[in-house]
Amino acid sequence: MKKILNLILLVLASLSAMPQAPRAVPPVSPQVNADNSAIFRFVAPNAKEVFLTGEFLKEKQAMAKDAAGIWTITVPNIKPDIYPYAFVVDGIQVADPNNTRIFANERFKFSLVDVKGSTPLVHAVKNVPHGKVTYRLYKSASLNTTRQLLVYTPPGFDANAAKKYPVLYLIHGGSDTQETWTKVGQANLIADNLIAEKKAVPMIIVMPYANTRPAPMAKFNDEVVNDIIPFIQANYPVLTDQPHRAIAGFSVGGGQTMEVGISNPDKFAYVSAYAPYPETAEFREIFADWKPDAAKLNKQYKLFSFSVGTEDFLYESTKKNMEMFKEKGVKFESLIVPGGHTWMNCKLYLATTLPKLFK
Amino acid sequence: MKKILNLILLVLASLSAMPQAPRAVPPVSPQVNADNSAIFRFVAPNAKEVFLTGEFLKEKQAMAKDAAGIWTITVPNIKPDIYPYAFVVDGIQVADPNNTRIFANERFKFSLVDVKGSTPLVHAVKNVPHGKVTYRLYKSASLNTTRQLLVYTPPGFDANAAKKYPVLYLIHGGSDTQETWTKVGQANLIADNLIAEKKAVPMIIVMPYANTRPAPMAKFNDEVVNDIIPFIQANYPVLTDQPHRAIAGFSVGGGQTMEVGISNPDKFAYVSAYAPYPETAEFREIFADWKPDAAKLNKQYKLFSFSVGTEDFLYESTKKNMEMFKEKGVKFESLIVPGGHTWMNCKLYLATTLPKLFK
Repeated sequence: MKKILNLILLVLASLSAMPQAPRAVPPVSPQVNADNSAIFRFVAPNAKEVFLTGEFLKEKQAMAKDAAGIWTITVPNIKPDIYPYAFVVDGIQVADPNNTRIFANERFKFSLVDVKGSTPLVHAVKNVPHGKVTYRLYKSASLNTTRQLLVYTPPGFDANAAKKYPVLYLIHGGSDTQETWTKVGQANLIADNLIAEKKAVPMIIVMPYANTRPAPMAKFNDEVVNDIIPFIQANYPVLTDQPHRAIAGFSVGGGQTMEVGISNPDKFAYVSAYAPYPETAEFREIFADWKPDAAKLNKQYKLFSFSVGTEDFLYESTKKNMEMFKEKGVKFESLIVPGGHTWMNCKLYLATTLPKLFK
Repeated sequence: MKKILNLILLVLASLSAMPQAPRAVPPVSPQVNADNSAIFRFVAPNAKEVFLTGEFLKEKQAMAKDAAGIWTITVPNIKPDIYPYAFVVDGIQVADPNNTRIFANERFKFSLVDVKGSTPLVHAVKNVPHGKVTYRLYKSASLNTTRQLLVYTPPGFDANAAKKYPVLYLIHGGSDTQETWTKVGQANLIADNLIAEKKAVPMIIVMPYANTRPAPMAKFNDEVVNDIIPFIQANYPVLTDQPHRAIAGFSVGGGQTMEVGISNPDKFAYVSAYAPYPETAEFREIFADWKPDAAKLNKQYKLFSFSVGTEDFLYESTKKNMEMFKEKGVKFESLIVPGGHTWMNCKLYLATTLPKLFK
């Protein structure tokens, strides 16, 4: 009986749970090949033109339609990494309907393609002990709502053991979500791998939802200090002193990281901004009358750092930020690498930061 | 300094982290109003026709374009619930790019609209203690890979306390993912609310990824018995006897639930199939030579149940399944309600099952 039942289940494996969903067997897309080429396919018999756009391309590429109405393109020789991409169908940008992996974001809808390459990258699922990512609801008094945040606990984490952990607060970019650092940035896997290699110490990583629209972004500092940190300290075995607390973030989240970190040097020993906003001229103006006790700050911060790519549209402004801090005598580290304002770079920035924390 | 920095951050709040993303302020969509109407908006100045399709509609509705190229439709008087919807743009179905909530599925890309109504529904975020949802990676020997599953632990869960919990294994529909029961089915919130009302007992809910393509679905039984249950028992304080183990699932996952439950009555006391596949004629054929010891089975199962909607395309086949079990003397409960093969109904089925478990 069981075998036949299994056979029926096999036949039905492609059955969708929704009646409106197409029942035809969909094409494989993306299909990543051993030579690091990838084939992208999109079914649109009536479309006039379909392009592929993706962060592994300099510019969007026209796809070709076959007799069955499937548009296809093969992209050769992609540098191993995880990239956002989408199709532009008669001017409308759509995610790949045959790809489960979606770029977690509030606005644009990109899919993700994982070109693994022959050597596992720092963000790959490797044969190492894995931490957990827990989705928590918490009450925010600052924002008067219930919000979600994600908590990475490292392999071997035991909520009741005597051991207490340092904490990194990790902030997404503007219009990203609390899931972007794990689903796009692979933060949990990067931590798993670096901890397994003993390059990073076991730590807890807290990934809040940082968009406070329509309330001002200003509220995010209150949210971190008055709601998120107390929630984590009430619910996890964490070290609560300044040397064991870090903050890092990307883009608007890099600006938030600077705001929170600079406003609270008594609370954060590590502050890492990845291609941070805000734009520099205004930032310099703000800081024109800022007269930090640089010597004190330099003692308080174990790490104050900037990471940016030379093709990032915030490269010039980040350089100017760094000059300003230099003029004021605030020490910092910098990581200047190729690449743009991308999550490929974010993964690199995080993998570079984690080994510097809590040592 | 901080105020001005905050102001800049506010202005930049809509800045996207990706350079390719549109920078114009996007329209609000969906906009759910207090009278349970909802407005849907989609920017497509060059599209010829745009329709709204959604499970709150009998059929897709044409949207109207304004001078700015924004297509709009207002749908009045929607019965409070969470519904999948999408836009059909010149024949191409796309999710709503301005809505973060995506239907977790491997194939179709729908967005979700939450019409809350004036009285919080059983799946709403209420002012009650919240459990956690944890994303775990585990090694599957059956499938020779590392997979992800989600684990709901109830409010007050303590991994190290003497208390041990019963476990519900909850299976998604074909082409859904391990996230569909939480992101679409709100399983964690339904459990939170029913536990707070003392209608359900605190339990652990395990939501695996049940698609085993390209390997046969047959493997899912091995996966549950040989990999998932042992992983959970090794990592969580759970009761390991038959009376404290349940399985439930929807659609193809309902078929898997029947397969796993019927193959292992020594392991599962509760088996609940929601609009289950497989299709009945073949199912009856399989079961034609199945001569269960009905008296024994009826003692083993504390609950064997079917739930289905009268508009479900599997309604007739589910009725025939039930007749077959009746003929064989296997007792079951049934829940027959209005509605189709939808996740609106799934939420109802789960909310009806949870109070029956482990009592």
